[in-house]
Amino acid sequence: MSVQTKTLSVRTRGKGTYEVTGEVEEFLRSTGLREGLLTVFCRHTSCSLVIMENADPSARRDLEDWFERNVPEDDPAFTHTLEGADDMPSHIRMALTRSSEVIPFTDGRLALGTWQGIMLFEHRRAPHTRSLVVSAMSE
Amino acid sequence: MSVQTKTLSVRTRGKGTYEVTGEVEEFLRSTGLREGLLTVFCRHTSCSLVIMENADPSARRDLEDWFERNVPEDDPAFTHTLEGADDMPSHIRMALTRSSEVIPFTDGRLALGTWQGIMLFEHRRAPHTRSLVVSAMSE
Amino acid sequence: MSVQTKTLSVRTRGKGTYEVTGEVEEFLRSTGLREGLLTVFCRHTSCSLVIMENADPSARRDLEDWFERNVPEDDPAFTHTLEGADDMPSHIRMALTRSSEVIPFTDGRLALGTWQGIMLFEHRRAPHTRSLVVSAMSE
Repeated sequence: MSVQTKTLSVRTRGKGTYEVTGEVEEFLRSTGLREGLLTVFCRHTSCSLVIMENADPSARRDLEDWFERNVPEDDPAFTHTLEGADDMPSHIRMALTRSSEVIPFTDGRLALGTWQGIMLFEHRRAPHTRSLVVSAMSE
Repeated sequence: MSVQTKTLSVRTRGKGTYEVTGEVEEFLRSTGLREGLLTVFCRHTSCSLVIMENADPSARRDLEDWFERNVPEDDPAFTHTLEGADDMPSHIRMALTRSSEVIPFTDGRLALGTWQGIMLFEHRRAPHTRSLVVSAMSE
Repeated sequence: MSVQTKTLSVRTRGKGTYEVTGEVEEFLRSTGLREGLLTVFCRHTSCSLVIMENADPSARRDLEDWFERNVPEDDPAFTHTLEGADDMPSHIRMALTRSSEVIPFTDGRLALGTWQGIMLFEHRRAPHTRSLVVSAMSE
């Protein structure tokens, strides 16, 4: 078996979904592996992963807005507020989405559906540099 | 290492959970692999995966109804509505559940708990043919 | 390839998050593997996994309280109530978080971020002994 791993840096400019499919596919191509499994791991608790519709921007915007309304910053029940009003909602939004994904690949291409894109979901207001660890393994 | 992969087709007849544990176990048996890891990947953004209680149908129904009430079709904030009122809720329900799972197997059997079933969670009203990619890998 | 697997038992004392990062890392050390992927699988439908901030206890408490308020026990719409008021909310909270995670490791250490801890999220009131299956695989 071969396992190859790389850390991708993603610069975010505040809350929102940032598609990383291109970077992940570029990593996969660089490994030269043809058949196997690729994993993505998000090394943070205030941003997360989600595999989302990447054709129509309104779908992503509605998803982001849904979390704004349903895990709101101004929830008076939060006590973990030292780092700001966006701190605690970011952890909950992360818990409701994903920290890791595993995606098969065939012929050197990810088996994503036609409209699936891999997104880093940033939950903090301030810009951040985020780390995703991608691994590809094959026979 | 050996990696074997297959695409399972699942026909859905509208919203709801569709258990696929049998099909996944049949695939695992067909590989002849005994010890390793099995992954399931859902190639869609309007249906998803969840590993759910499969003994009492009322548990699944309550789960489905919870999503109907808590991610409702008639949310006036949605703008991504071209494909119908069930389009945007389907993406959010997908994001709140899972696109991929990884399950160990031993002696050729999945290490699922007694009441765990692998479910395709269909979020659209219309019937669809859905693709799940299953992979089994072993030493 | 080498795959090594172990079942970890976790005793819970009612609802809450129970950090298992130490037990998972101890398993990884015991395998002697240096580079690869570790998976965690939760064999239950009334508890789940989440990778959460493990520095400030108030973050975990706010997360737990959010689920208490947003997937409440006294939802009159629930019908699956034979095992008690905490039964159905436990399945929904499980579906909203995770059953499996995959985490890379390098130099024999998990590639977790600085404040990431692996948590078993217990959703039932009564004490339980829970099973997590951990697997490490390497070239």
